[in-house]
Amino acid sequence: MTVKVYGFVGSNATYRVMASLYEKNVDFELVTVNMAAWEHKRPRFLARNPFGQVPAFEDGDVSLFESRAITQYVARKYAGKGTELIMKDPIQMAIQTVWMEVENQKFDRASWKLTEIAMHRVRGGPELVAEYEKKLSDVLDVYEARLTENKYLAGDSFTLADLHHLPNINFLMETRVRRLFEARPHVRAWVADITSRPAWVKVMSLSPW
Amino acid sequence: MTVKVYGFVGSNATYRVMASLYEKNVDFELVTVNMAAWEHKRPRFLARNPFGQVPAFEDGDVSLFESRAITQYVARKYAGKGTELIMKDPIQMAIQTVWMEVENQKFDRASWKLTEIAMHRVRGGPELVAEYEKKLSDVLDVYEARLTENKYLAGDSFTLADLHHLPNINFLMETRVRRLFEARPHVRAWVADITSRPAWVKVMSLSPW
Repeated sequence: MTVKVYGFVGSNATYRVMASLYEKNVDFELVTVNMAAWEHKRPRFLARNPFGQVPAFEDGDVSLFESRAITQYVARKYAGKGTELIMKDPIQMAIQTVWMEVENQKFDRASWKLTEIAMHRVRGGPELVAEYEKKLSDVLDVYEARLTENKYLAGDSFTLADLHHLPNINFLMETRVRRLFEARPHVRAWVADITSRPAWVKVMSLSPW
Repeated sequence: MTVKVYGFVGSNATYRVMASLYEKNVDFELVTVNMAAWEHKRPRFLARNPFGQVPAFEDGDVSLFESRAITQYVARKYAGKGTELIMKDPIQMAIQTVWMEVENQKFDRASWKLTEIAMHRVRGGPELVAEYEKKLSDVLDVYEARLTENKYLAGDSFTLADLHHLPNINFLMETRVRRLFEARPHVRAWVADITSRPAWVKVMSLSPW
């Protein structure tokens, strides 16, 4: 049975899941959901994800949604294949979970709003941009300190705590928000490292931009 | 060694962690962080949580922050004690993770903004309230369908996927947002069920309100 990712090229959350599958060397089929045709709001897709958002995921009988839940499933189900994306030691895993939560609660909230503004999905005057650039800067200050002492957010090795950042970082590096990453040497080195991983390069090779 | 929670009575995120500890029957000490005295921004606290927010957590040598990372640690470390807060079967756990992500990505983002508006922490005119009430309503529509088929979000038993909702729900039930929960019979029954759990009643007995 083939693993299936229902999403589309250009979707940050779809990219997040694809990156985890490439890291684990798991073959999968990308089933394109045609957003222009409103396919994601039709009953067939809503049965896969009641929120009507990509990606949805299928692995045999297992049907999931929410990109970060899918990556955790992939990391656990295919443990022993490809890159280990979760720490084996329970205490190290607890620390990894802290940084996965930081991504979710802090980094994603700031960086996604800036992404939406850059995509003209939400109206954002200079004040809103400044407010969210300040939020992102505060997060990156903490990352700079963390990455001064650890090569990756969870510790010595690349994990889901890093991987979850990739799509938003990749997008924002093409905008003026790039300067916030560039201004912090350890953050800059971390960005260069994680965005040059073969799995991510493979995801990006599908991107039309 | 005593488990320590650094936070304060009245903090939603502190309550989230305390609820998990009471569910697991784990003794702990609540070390009050004096926000008025700016204690959370001093070096001693920043060493526990570089974001300067409560709660922080200590269990022997293990030092953590981010409430949802702490609850996951507590659930795993004290497996076999008190309420099982995580599903044992890997596929059921994957489904639980989906609903924990839904809480984090969808429910918390909508409900926390409404909480902040109600607390007068952010300026919120009627349009902002309407925008976030619409977002929360859309989430609760999905919950209503889910809870029609399952007693709890992850399935047959109460888990962290439900527990993580408690503080925000508890606060919003004292505001006019309450009507959004009350209007949906299965959501209403779920709210009544989870807010009457002995562990949550114990957390609330500390609340001055």
